[in-house]
Amino acid sequence: MNHPLSIPLLVPDLPTATEVLPYLQRIEQARWYTNFGPLVREFEQSLLNQFTQVQAGEWYLTTVSNGTLGLELALQVLNLPKGARVLIPALTFVATATAVIRAGCQPVLADIDPDSWLLTPDLALIAWQRQPYHAVMPVATFGCPQEVEAWESFFARTGVPVVIDAAGAFGNQQVGKNILTVFSLHATKALGIGEGGFIIGGNQHLIAAIRELSNFGISKQAHFVTQVGTNAKMSELHAAVGLAALARWSQKQQRYRQLYRDYLTILCRACPQIILQNKPIEGIYPVLPICLPNGQNGQTVATYLAFQGIETRRWYCPPIFEHSAFAQVPWSDSLETVRHLAGRLLGLPFHLFMTTADIEQVGMELNRAIQEPGVMNCG
Amino acid sequence: MNHPLSIPLLVPDLPTATEVLPYLQRIEQARWYTNFGPLVREFEQSLLNQFTQVQAGEWYLTTVSNGTLGLELALQVLNLPKGARVLIPALTFVATATAVIRAGCQPVLADIDPDSWLLTPDLALIAWQRQPYHAVMPVATFGCPQEVEAWESFFARTGVPVVIDAAGAFGNQQVGKNILTVFSLHATKALGIGEGGFIIGGNQHLIAAIRELSNFGISKQAHFVTQVGTNAKMSELHAAVGLAALARWSQKQQRYRQLYRDYLTILCRACPQIILQNKPIEGIYPVLPICLPNGQNGQTVATYLAFQGIETRRWYCPPIFEHSAFAQVPWSDSLETVRHLAGRLLGLPFHLFMTTADIEQVGMELNRAIQEPGVMNCG
Repeated sequence: MNHPLSIPLLVPDLPTATEVLPYLQRIEQARWYTNFGPLVREFEQSLLNQFTQVQAGEWYLTTVSNGTLGLELALQVLNLPKGARVLIPALTFVATATAVIRAGCQPVLADIDPDSWLLTPDLALIAWQRQPYHAVMPVATFGCPQEVEAWESFFARTGVPVVIDAAGAFGNQQVGKNILTVFSLHATKALGIGEGGFIIGGNQHLIAAIRELSNFGISKQAHFVTQVGTNAKMSELHAAVGLAALARWSQKQQRYRQLYRDYLTILCRACPQIILQNKPIEGIYPVLPICLPNGQNGQTVATYLAFQGIETRRWYCPPIFEHSAFAQVPWSDSLETVRHLAGRLLGLPFHLFMTTADIEQVGMELNRAIQEPGVMNCG
Repeated sequence: MNHPLSIPLLVPDLPTATEVLPYLQRIEQARWYTNFGPLVREFEQSLLNQFTQVQAGEWYLTTVSNGTLGLELALQVLNLPKGARVLIPALTFVATATAVIRAGCQPVLADIDPDSWLLTPDLALIAWQRQPYHAVMPVATFGCPQEVEAWESFFARTGVPVVIDAAGAFGNQQVGKNILTVFSLHATKALGIGEGGFIIGGNQHLIAAIRELSNFGISKQAHFVTQVGTNAKMSELHAAVGLAALARWSQKQQRYRQLYRDYLTILCRACPQIILQNKPIEGIYPVLPICLPNGQNGQTVATYLAFQGIETRRWYCPPIFEHSAFAQVPWSDSLETVRHLAGRLLGLPFHLFMTTADIEQVGMELNRAIQEPGVMNCG
């Protein structure tokens, strides 16, 4: 029963110890290990420079110890009324929902677009016209970028603040002046540093306030606590990994793009029945989720593939509303698309150590599982 | 005016890059960077072994990304009623208070013992008899250990859960079976790893639940979210520093003990008027706070010392009740001792790179500031 996994789901490709070493030596020399040290500040500037639309002096960025705390603080800084309703998609990682609740708000679940699998500005507008909410937190699900201009228009029209949960979308997601965009740098992300994240936006006051909240809420000017913050500071150590990761980011981007193109070509030939998320072919994606054809079950196929030594994961199944912690969370509509898709989603192995032969094998076994359901009883 | 500081307040003594390197190589080989990886698990076991009273199998420990999140989750796991009253000392770092509020509770400020500067079990009992509260979070202030047996008795008598904020007391603070004890491993602590912390106790269920809360609340058994958690996981990178730090911890403990003994000897000779916190002479302390004689002002002395190139910090002034974020926090009594002491407390330079000459100079200048207030106008 314990077939050794020959094709693992994720294999992080972080900087080597040798690549990180010069940055560790800098930390050692400065003897400054956290609390907005020189490496964190340099890493923040380097991250800012990654956003091509960014002009110096008009955009602001602050790092955090992880993306989840970034979402919590981005919501907190909006100063929404206690129990404020925050629209989120029902198909997302659980941290989207936990962050809303920990920020003292109430998540409201929205449906997703059947092609992009995203909560789009159009869907958010329909939900808002049905029943207003205080903020919206769309997700760049599976790395698929949200349309920033459309969200800016949504904000201009409704006045509802927008926080984009772009946890898995660094490299794809553009940023908006009137939007807070939160990225994760978790080990499993395209730009992984272990644990980490950052928030970027055009509002200097909000970003500065998030920075203070990440340092207990201590006001930089007065050295007094004016807002109740926590410790969400990125350490110099993680900034060291981040600087080493950025040093080879452009090369890594190319490898990710190539992998995604090659993978799709092989997959669409080997197993044309599967349904793919509609997103830019030139993107940099940390994962490869597919949707099985109607009538297929994600768990059955996952079990079959595991027997063939292929690791998969059923992101994001169960969807948010099936977790007992979110049983009381209201829905903005019937969530028809999420309910229709969730059970058929499957994350395939996707990482920079995969060979063409690995991808061929995934495609072949996936096709076998779908074409000949009988084979799945052989385990 | 910008006198270069010749005697800095704190100089962290963390493992060198060379010492950390073998652990980074282990991470690189495993390609496992966070989410309870092998180094975190080894570090947790090694931390457990540091507590001499600990018997295998009866004590439990889980790491967190920092001590503040450790306090938040330790309070959350108690499942206190919403808005529950939690007694804390009025003299402590602000994170003690922010953690209570972020855990959905209401801090209630208590006074401290005039000798140990701690909220003691006796003071907590008096406050409880005056008006009951739901939990108490005493602090091992400035590294001074809390008396665990007395807190166990307090718990046995009142049934009020006890969480010890032992942020700065690793090496001194004993742990209790029926108590949750939270340590910080921040760079400025005796065992510093950059950012980090852990919680230890005798209740397997509570520690396991904190571990789940630090991973979004995802239940290990069911893979469902049953409690609303956050991301408070320690990365493998910080565990690497932790393992390297523990490898020379026994040597570092000796150096800290020696420093404290030598410092006290010099200080008591050079400036016998100062008042010291009553705590074990054989302790391992991350900081050296003193209390100035009655009538003296901490800020005035700090300013004078800064002109002499001696960096100090006024821990914990202003006390909790003077921060605007805590203006509504109720007091359990008049907080007489805190109000009497806070303005006179001063943290002196204290770190393993200090020479005997440095300490002599601190003592001499401190004495000058106290003996001859006139000299303080010379700036």
